[in-house]
Amino acid sequence: VRHLGCDARSIHRVQVPDDVAATLSFFMELDRLKSVERRNRLADGSRCENTAEHSWHLGMAALVFAGQATEPIDVGRCVAMALTHDIVEIDAGDTFAYDTGVDAASKEAREQAAADRLFGMLPAAVGAHLRELWDEYERGDTADARYVMAIDRMAPMLLNIAEGGTTWREHGITRARVIERNGPHVEPALPGVWQHALAGLEALPGSALD
Amino acid sequence: VRHLGCDARSIHRVQVPDDVAATLSFFMELDRLKSVERRNRLADGSRCENTAEHSWHLGMAALVFAGQATEPIDVGRCVAMALTHDIVEIDAGDTFAYDTGVDAASKEAREQAAADRLFGMLPAAVGAHLRELWDEYERGDTADARYVMAIDRMAPMLLNIAEGGTTWREHGITRARVIERNGPHVEPALPGVWQHALAGLEALPGSALD
Repeated sequence: VRHLGCDARSIHRVQVPDDVAATLSFFMELDRLKSVERRNRLADGSRCENTAEHSWHLGMAALVFAGQATEPIDVGRCVAMALTHDIVEIDAGDTFAYDTGVDAASKEAREQAAADRLFGMLPAAVGAHLRELWDEYERGDTADARYVMAIDRMAPMLLNIAEGGTTWREHGITRARVIERNGPHVEPALPGVWQHALAGLEALPGSALD
Repeated sequence: VRHLGCDARSIHRVQVPDDVAATLSFFMELDRLKSVERRNRLADGSRCENTAEHSWHLGMAALVFAGQATEPIDVGRCVAMALTHDIVEIDAGDTFAYDTGVDAASKEAREQAAADRLFGMLPAAVGAHLRELWDEYERGDTADARYVMAIDRMAPMLLNIAEGGTTWREHGITRARVIERNGPHVEPALPGVWQHALAGLEALPGSALD
């Protein structure tokens, strides 16, 4: 009976309205994102980051960097997009940013199926709203999506630099690849942040990155 | 030199504008919230929750439960408030919701000092904005603050129920105390959610909770 509290729909059919039960089921499902492990470590190197706390960090970043964005953005939408954009990893798992062995078509299919299932758990209107945010982020064709993507690239880069570059060393990622992968997203949206990240990257010791 | 990437202000005084450097320092400081451990466990019981991932879960909850709130709320403000309201724990630590041994005045003093320091790291306008959200949450005297507080009480209660009530048993928290502590916040703001949580609480096995 340990699962009783989770399965709102089947237990409380009478008392709890359908929308509440559906939203609660989605809320409980979200808890699993806290167990999806990313490759990068926390800034203090103590452990790897998980996707839920990463998403919180991005939401906060979307709030506090908004005044420095080069394009006009809707901050509230960007925060919601930052919180939502990695939820599909509950089903599809995290893909390392520098992984070249991943079949892009297969990754996209897994993530689309995950989005169908997860956002489909919600009442129609709110599910459609989150799905739109996720689709927009994936397309990357709006100022809001470009800003959130810049923050999503900036965050692990800054954590990796602060931590000393262990994850990059472990995976043989050179400075040139870090710049090639992140610069095109971070530099146009947050040029001052990019200057800082680049200086931090260059100051990292160790020839393994060259 | 491992800290080089963190200390934006001192290293990049020339290239990086002050506002960018200050915002980056705050962003890096936020990383520490991922290491603040709460008493409640994840729904699967695998480990205790940390405050950063808890804050993400609340931000998502603020988004998806908005349509069920009993008072008119500004969803964007509520999401920002949910993400921000526990940042003071970076300095002040987490206080267990049922801890009766805590000196309320001392806790408040520690949290006020934490808010001064942390929000004070940011450029003035954005720092003042986050501080206002935090102050409003602490006062709890607006519809937005009441809604976020309801979600903040709902979330650990649902996780504890899903997990089987271990944290409550460990600390000798009875059903009556759970209801007394959370009901006054959750029930008025999200009555359907409260019905569900109450049914889950009653279905939990074990006389230790009685």
